[in-house]
Amino acid sequence: MPQGPFDPFDWIDEQAAVRAKAGLVRTLRPRSAESALLDLASNDYLGLTHHPEVTSAAAEAARRWGAGATGSRLVTGSTRLHAELERELADFCGFEAALVLSSGYAANLAALTALSGHGSLIVSDALNHASIVDGCRLSRATTSVVPHADPDAVRKTLDAHDGRALAVTDSVFSVDGDAAPLAELAAACRAYGAALLVDDAHGLGVLGDGGRGAPHAAGLAGADGVVATLTLSKSLGSQGGAVLGPARVIDHLVNTARTFIFDTGLAPAAAGAALASARLLRREPELAGRARTVAASLHGGLTDAGLSAVRPDAAVVSVLAPSPEAAVRWAADCRAAGLVVGCFRPPSVPDGISRLRLTARADLTDAQVAQAVATVVRTAPSAAF
Amino acid sequence: MPQGPFDPFDWIDEQAAVRAKAGLVRTLRPRSAESALLDLASNDYLGLTHHPEVTSAAAEAARRWGAGATGSRLVTGSTRLHAELERELADFCGFEAALVLSSGYAANLAALTALSGHGSLIVSDALNHASIVDGCRLSRATTSVVPHADPDAVRKTLDAHDGRALAVTDSVFSVDGDAAPLAELAAACRAYGAALLVDDAHGLGVLGDGGRGAPHAAGLAGADGVVATLTLSKSLGSQGGAVLGPARVIDHLVNTARTFIFDTGLAPAAAGAALASARLLRREPELAGRARTVAASLHGGLTDAGLSAVRPDAAVVSVLAPSPEAAVRWAADCRAAGLVVGCFRPPSVPDGISRLRLTARADLTDAQVAQAVATVVRTAPSAAF
Ligand SMILES: Cc1ncc(COP(=O)(O)O)c(C=O)c1O
Ligand SMILES: Cc1ncc(COP(=O)(O)O)c(C=O)c1O
Repeated sequence: MPQGPFDPFDWIDEQAAVRAKAGLVRTLRPRSAESALLDLASNDYLGLTHHPEVTSAAAEAARRWGAGATGSRLVTGSTRLHAELERELADFCGFEAALVLSSGYAANLAALTALSGHGSLIVSDALNHASIVDGCRLSRATTSVVPHADPDAVRKTLDAHDGRALAVTDSVFSVDGDAAPLAELAAACRAYGAALLVDDAHGLGVLGDGGRGAPHAAGLAGADGVVATLTLSKSLGSQGGAVLGPARVIDHLVNTARTFIFDTGLAPAAAGAALASARLLRREPELAGRARTVAASLHGGLTDAGLSAVRPDAAVVSVLAPSPEAAVRWAADCRAAGLVVGCFRPPSVPDGISRLRLTARADLTDAQVAQAVATVVRTAPSAAF
Repeated sequence: MPQGPFDPFDWIDEQAAVRAKAGLVRTLRPRSAESALLDLASNDYLGLTHHPEVTSAAAEAARRWGAGATGSRLVTGSTRLHAELERELADFCGFEAALVLSSGYAANLAALTALSGHGSLIVSDALNHASIVDGCRLSRATTSVVPHADPDAVRKTLDAHDGRALAVTDSVFSVDGDAAPLAELAAACRAYGAALLVDDAHGLGVLGDGGRGAPHAAGLAGADGVVATLTLSKSLGSQGGAVLGPARVIDHLVNTARTFIFDTGLAPAAAGAALASARLLRREPELAGRARTVAASLHGGLTDAGLSAVRPDAAVVSVLAPSPEAAVRWAADCRAAGLVVGCFRPPSVPDGISRLRLTARADLTDAQVAQAVATVVRTAPSAAF
């Protein structure tokens, strides 16, 4: 019905007012290049984003290949640099083949939509990342959300289903930093002929022999029926994502995954940087262990002081906060004291519980770790102890 | 039911066999950096991907800001460079505010999901890009697909709906290169209080005063109720995407758009390159007209020779092929003769019709245009005339 000229975005102001009242307004705070703050909020787990070898590789790739890929990977967007990166990621992580996409988000959408479909079942952990949730929504499969880290629930769900199925899980959950029970999940999938998709965004570079990732650590790299997704934006310090798996699965994605086919290829600078990081990690396998040690030290310091923190399985240390407002104030007080930490609160947390999120970096010194612990403890609200 | 060990990817082999039989197998063909081929397949409409100012800006940004953004834009992923790029894109295109995302694909998903939702209506052109289709699927809105470039159909659909609505269209359709009737669509939306979302992926840098894009050309830049999405991966020669609109819409996206909130920020090198391209375009506004002139010359040459090509509204020239197999052979023959053209065939074309897709570039010389026309005509299958 014609309604005369009125404002199509009125409802946005109403939602904004609700957010403001609930203290949940998010604003962007662009950082400067010369910040003197100590950063424990980024996902740069190995400290490679600013490594001269990595930034030089980015610069060199832009000069040699151009600033953009210029088209879909199926048209003009595939360079030898992309192929080299795919070879390196597959070899390093122990899979037959790899496909690089413009982001980890796109990689999850690609894998989930291409490997499921109408009439099939996806079994998804309740705390999986938003990109997995969106991939399930896009897939047209039936999605069954199971309790967090519960292989028995996966087993039961698979048992009740007749036909094609895939289970999907983060390897390390991004909010609390806890690891998924991959071996048990793989056994459940194997028993029911289901595929297993592991999002190793927070495992690559941190877990497994020399940082080869969680599937490698669990003996699942290259296994039949196992596919992994990666992001190049965390431990590799760049941008982009990848899917790893059997060659026929990768071929299938090349032919059917919409977020691969209809998206411009990853920029050469990002591909070059990720490749340099992967090679650096091969040369310095101890980086992965160092990130885990730093995480354990952070956790030890915080819990010794009486705070509630989740024992880290990788490089993410999650500290519980008494309320969203307390978490925001706590993070702000840390920042005022020179320390940047993540602050997760609704709706970015799946369970409604607010927390500070600290990330270990392999390049943090012991003194910096001590400083970080001291700052978090000193600024903690009393209800946090 | 337990089914004993069997192969969870059997069905992939079956689908691959079907594709092979239909001659529809896609494979990646990585290009080398020193190719001597003439490229009329990329979306580098202004030839800026290899421009020294643009590649230097990418290199410089990687050195200064690091190879990656290190986190979500809401945590550590917003740099002053991102803010500067957002200001420049908004100002250049004539909108109040802008938000940069990791790809144009992510920008469409963000805009569609954040600006619609359960109970609302999306009216989508039948030939819209895959990322718009996926955005509609993710949105939980009711999507009504209307015939291509048909403002009356949009009007009728809006008339039959009660409640919040948004119409969405490519500004220039990526396959045939034809332009959407933006002014009429905007009038229809205005009459019904609906929002209008314009994907200007192929308009930015080519259409409008100095390349300010299709919404600007249609007098819609900055209009109430109008939102645009961009990619930084075509005329700006980089990677990434953006949403442009009223500041309150951008704030709403910052707070609610999942592909913004849960995705790592765009790599600094890509942001720096896009910013350099936008500034270059401001300084050399004639680049936009040159891309259109080249497209018109290609079209004139091909149709003068008797081929069927769609009159280009922007920089994409679509040439009809008699069959998928003929299109593949035609493109291969062009390549053998030193010319790279796009070859679109099912399932990448929404209407099942195969075509060669030639893209104009502002940096093509008249001699190169003549060479391209001669090659396409000489290699054409006789059924194409
Ligand atoms: C578990 C997980 N998967 C996927 C992603 C998406 O990766 P990207 O940021 O590279 O798009 C992220 C974070 O951003 C993540 O934490
Ligand atoms: C019309 C249209 N919209 C969106 C996109 C996606 O942009 P990007 O490749 O930057 O993700 C493309 C092409 O890739 C496109 O042609």
